[in-house]
Amino acid sequence: MAYNTIRYDVASGVATITLSRPAKLNAYNAEMMRELIHAFDAVDGDDDVRVAIVTGDGKAFCAGADISEGVDGFKVGSSNELPLPDGRIDYGSDTIRDGGGRMTLRIFEMKKPIIGAVNGPAIGIGATMLLPMDIRLASDTARFGFVFARRGIVPEGASSYFLPRIVGIGRALEWCCTGRIFDAQEALNGGLISRLYPGEQLLAAAHSLAREIADNTAPVSVALTRQMLWRGLGMTHPMEAHRIESRGVFSRSGSADGVEGVASFLEKRAAHFPDLVTRDMPDYFPWWEDEPYR
Amino acid sequence: MAYNTIRYDVASGVATITLSRPAKLNAYNAEMMRELIHAFDAVDGDDDVRVAIVTGDGKAFCAGADISEGVDGFKVGSSNELPLPDGRIDYGSDTIRDGGGRMTLRIFEMKKPIIGAVNGPAIGIGATMLLPMDIRLASDTARFGFVFARRGIVPEGASSYFLPRIVGIGRALEWCCTGRIFDAQEALNGGLISRLYPGEQLLAAAHSLAREIADNTAPVSVALTRQMLWRGLGMTHPMEAHRIESRGVFSRSGSADGVEGVASFLEKRAAHFPDLVTRDMPDYFPWWEDEPYR
Amino acid sequence: MAYNTIRYDVASGVATITLSRPAKLNAYNAEMMRELIHAFDAVDGDDDVRVAIVTGDGKAFCAGADISEGVDGFKVGSSNELPLPDGRIDYGSDTIRDGGGRMTLRIFEMKKPIIGAVNGPAIGIGATMLLPMDIRLASDTARFGFVFARRGIVPEGASSYFLPRIVGIGRALEWCCTGRIFDAQEALNGGLISRLYPGEQLLAAAHSLAREIADNTAPVSVALTRQMLWRGLGMTHPMEAHRIESRGVFSRSGSADGVEGVASFLEKRAAHFPDLVTRDMPDYFPWWEDEPYR
Repeated sequence: MAYNTIRYDVASGVATITLSRPAKLNAYNAEMMRELIHAFDAVDGDDDVRVAIVTGDGKAFCAGADISEGVDGFKVGSSNELPLPDGRIDYGSDTIRDGGGRMTLRIFEMKKPIIGAVNGPAIGIGATMLLPMDIRLASDTARFGFVFARRGIVPEGASSYFLPRIVGIGRALEWCCTGRIFDAQEALNGGLISRLYPGEQLLAAAHSLAREIADNTAPVSVALTRQMLWRGLGMTHPMEAHRIESRGVFSRSGSADGVEGVASFLEKRAAHFPDLVTRDMPDYFPWWEDEPYR
Repeated sequence: MAYNTIRYDVASGVATITLSRPAKLNAYNAEMMRELIHAFDAVDGDDDVRVAIVTGDGKAFCAGADISEGVDGFKVGSSNELPLPDGRIDYGSDTIRDGGGRMTLRIFEMKKPIIGAVNGPAIGIGATMLLPMDIRLASDTARFGFVFARRGIVPEGASSYFLPRIVGIGRALEWCCTGRIFDAQEALNGGLISRLYPGEQLLAAAHSLAREIADNTAPVSVALTRQMLWRGLGMTHPMEAHRIESRGVFSRSGSADGVEGVASFLEKRAAHFPDLVTRDMPDYFPWWEDEPYR
Repeated sequence: MAYNTIRYDVASGVATITLSRPAKLNAYNAEMMRELIHAFDAVDGDDDVRVAIVTGDGKAFCAGADISEGVDGFKVGSSNELPLPDGRIDYGSDTIRDGGGRMTLRIFEMKKPIIGAVNGPAIGIGATMLLPMDIRLASDTARFGFVFARRGIVPEGASSYFLPRIVGIGRALEWCCTGRIFDAQEALNGGLISRLYPGEQLLAAAHSLAREIADNTAPVSVALTRQMLWRGLGMTHPMEAHRIESRGVFSRSGSADGVEGVASFLEKRAAHFPDLVTRDMPDYFPWWEDEPYR
């Protein structure tokens, strides 16, 4: 598929998704939402892709929703905003869907790890889209801003779920209640990113981390693990985790991957895992039933 | 209203609530509980107040429940402790209400951000009352102690919910199982406070942070954001956040605040948000149904 | 009881549980699972034990599941793996129980604090068994690895619940998706351990922390506190905590421990708490109903 707002490249098992509207600082619009969701589907559907990296074209990562045409730029969703008989809009309707959240919920259900490589300003949806990514790296030129309260709106992208869990409720509140722009060092101190690099080293570092995953691990194990940890974060009792894990440990121990994992370990050699994500996910996967977000 | 155990001052959009029983190191009693709840109601009901600061009068922040008259000082609640026919008390009864929790649950439902400015010892309820506050600052003379296990009782103030989420379960357990007093540096390292100041700079720093919120953000956005993040922390799936955020993004984009937020941004000028918390909260607010705590 | 795979020693109110299969780097097997569960039962059932320390014999803490005989070493549970009529195994069956999780769920329900003293490599279940422990210390020779994806299996020991809560979802994902071995400093930076010691000082530090708890606190208060914080971590609203805390504050204020706690404080002397965990837990304990894990 030809994309207009992103680029999609695959090399050596790693997909690179580049937000690419450089004249608009890669600002987010409905087309970018659709293309990103399409690209994440492509990553999950291609066994030759083990990990995806998301980065930005040019000086910015993503400047946020494209509001150059006005406030409707925030309404990048599927809402039809049907008026009630009295003229009000029913915002309780399921047809109202924040377009940031539609994309971050797609990331949430990925079977492959996503590495965010923040090469410059990441503002609004540019910041919140990072939250469901598994690993967040940044260059020292990155800037971040959860600026919603300065624009008269509210956090989106499911960030009110993700942000307090990732950076702590205290920092989440301070960043969102002030709406201020902060630099990469503050993001590092706050746990929003895990490592900071000089700009020219950022993509190499992201690729190195991607390789560490791609070269050493079983794809099906990683797909299960990613969902186990993200879903585990929302559980209310460790017994829920134990039940899912028990299925996983016993079924994967009996799989070709489990046999190869132990044999390669005992023989002190690299493992060659045969099972494929498109073909060999266990019967119990997915073990959840999510509401649709598309 | 004239208060006996606290002071309440409003200036330039910021309310300062000062715990003030200095001869008792601002120890907490039933009157202070009632007066604090009243003061938080006043903050939420006054559109001229954007942020509240809570601090202590004199050398202490709050030395804990006032047990100078004995162990009944811990029973600062609404319990009538009705005995059962066999003489035992039914502690499952809904009439039993910890008086620390009644106040911290009031903070939890605030529409305005609360900044804790810890000017000295914060022990027992003096420490746990900080937890539902949005931002916690301290002077280098602050001391903290979750001393309940040293007094033969247990954590209160809903701290068994808040503390592990704010400082991590490991630190929460160590602080509560040892019951030890620790200094401001350990509190900073553990994430209980976000910044540390020389004593004479503490209140100025708190006011500066309050101004950053008051001068730049939309009051309705901040009220929604505060509840979205705190409620988001208790959700079990990002879809729950997405549904609330979708209502917020679409309804606030269509509000006077949303229009002003984008116009001021495009015109590179300060925003003047017209909507008021007492008048303009959206129809879907509150989107939860809490049990009563009063 | 004589143990084959662990040692169990009690001195001065502190139990030390030592994983002891040194020729196998203390690798975990079904016998060790059963003996650890038995030892944790002994700790909870003995009022002379206030705190337990878990450490390893020799150079390792625990090298993981004993897979020296092959992949079935991962299946250390109670599964009977009954085949369905079509020959497949039903991994949704409740008879499938990961043997790491059966032990970590026993730790989860402890009434006494557990201190992990990681003296060397802690890999696989050697790392995940640390997670429900209350305080984790390590020597500078410790190594850690959530290596499951490198063996073709998935995280166990209820770690998909515990790990993202203890170290954050970002670090949990990175450690589990790469499966790499990392050193004690990275574990400290990531919050997996709270303090790091030269190897010869580790056990003394663990004992010192155990004494701080044993010498100053009420055993019933600590038992309640431990469960309140761990259970509080899984709650979805602070009201849930408030209800449990209210029972605890009022009932313990009226107990012999509460009276002694306040009297000793007012008299500025050491407290001597009379209540025993085996005899004096309050009527409302336990306030939960867990599924069985044994």
